Amino acid sequence: MKDKRVPEVVAKRLPRYYRYLVELLNKGVFRISSGELSKKMNVTASQIRQDFNFFGGFGQQGYGYNVEQLKNEIGAILGIDTMNTTILMGAGYLGHALANHANFERRGFKLIGIFDVDEKIVGKEINGVKVYDNSYLKEFMEIHKPDIAILSVPKPVVKDVATELISYGIKGIWNFSYSEFHMDTDVPIENVHLSDSLMFLSYKVNNGEE
Amino acid sequence: MKDKRVPEVVAKRLPRYYRYLVELLNKGVFRISSGELSKKMNVTASQIRQDFNFFGGFGQQGYGYNVEQLKNEIGAILGIDTMNTTILMGAGYLGHALANHANFERRGFKLIGIFDVDEKIVGKEINGVKVYDNSYLKEFMEIHKPDIAILSVPKPVVKDVATELISYGIKGIWNFSYSEFHMDTDVPIENVHLSDSLMFLSYKVNNGEE
Repeated sequence: MKDKRVPEVVAKRLPRYYRYLVELLNKGVFRISSGELSKKMNVTASQIRQDFNFFGGFGQQGYGYNVEQLKNEIGAILGIDTMNTTILMGAGYLGHALANHANFERRGFKLIGIFDVDEKIVGKEINGVKVYDNSYLKEFMEIHKPDIAILSVPKPVVKDVATELISYGIKGIWNFSYSEFHMDTDVPIENVHLSDSLMFLSYKVNNGEE
Repeated sequence: MKDKRVPEVVAKRLPRYYRYLVELLNKGVFRISSGELSKKMNVTASQIRQDFNFFGGFGQQGYGYNVEQLKNEIGAILGIDTMNTTILMGAGYLGHALANHANFERRGFKLIGIFDVDEKIVGKEINGVKVYDNSYLKEFMEIHKPDIAILSVPKPVVKDVATELISYGIKGIWNFSYSEFHMDTDVPIENVHLSDSLMFLSYKVNNGEE
């Protein structure tokens, strides 16, 4: 199933397919043609077929896709069919918001620890998950070997925190610290750019789209 | 400059161009070829030229682009060269995090009011912006006519709040409430899907990319 030649742009579309398929299942839709899926998702049916061909096609054309099977296969490709254990660095407002975000667990990410330096927060729980002092990070990672770290720390320390996490063996970093950074590492880093979608909204507002 | 035939997929790439150009300017880079820009952004030079052709090309090929001019032109297309006045609905953890996000103003979005129903927060200020009771929304909008509303309200009320905002004349909605919704309206709505980039990170972690 794993195909190294999958272009990044195709892989980037998979989460959206996944979301739509979950939505369909929740509505009780169990079979869908690429034509219907394309209408719902506002992409061409041929793009959907092309995208799915990278992963061996899925389902029969004409007869349509089995929604649950397709969801499961895309989930497996995304690696969210088994839980990814996750830690959160930084329990400020954004950290709190992220820790309380129920969707992550539904999407295959289990929060197992939160780290901060603020002694007013350390020792407490957010959404049932304990907040530890940063000094415990190394030991925690040796014991629990979390897969993914979410960064919501202040900008000036982002790179240091990432360097520390990588040295302790983190497998991926989701950077939410509003500071894009690039490091010489094999560890995948996803920088979140909130303002991109805000700028795109501005484009639509100012160019009379929709 | 406004060209209705610009495909959505091209318009969606503009914020990323804009971000990179700002980064270049901050580094003191004033001229760049499509080749160099393509290397930095990890897209092909021909895609960059194709994208820019939708907007009349910008700059001369061979000689390269004037970074500041290009940034300004893309900013104008995005409609962020003049400030978009913005209100924030919901001052929970996420609302606090968004109100404190300094980047928005740099990207052309000025927060002028925050609305909540929690009397413990109403009357206070977040990042210098006043929190008003929801009951004041209609009057506030008549007076200040904000362009854009950011939604960070609880899921069950998202649609009601959006309906109210639209009836009062909001021009665009940036929905951060983790609940995708579709309404029969001409007002552009951008739903933010945080977990998409988290799922894509999982894909990279699980497929040994980078």
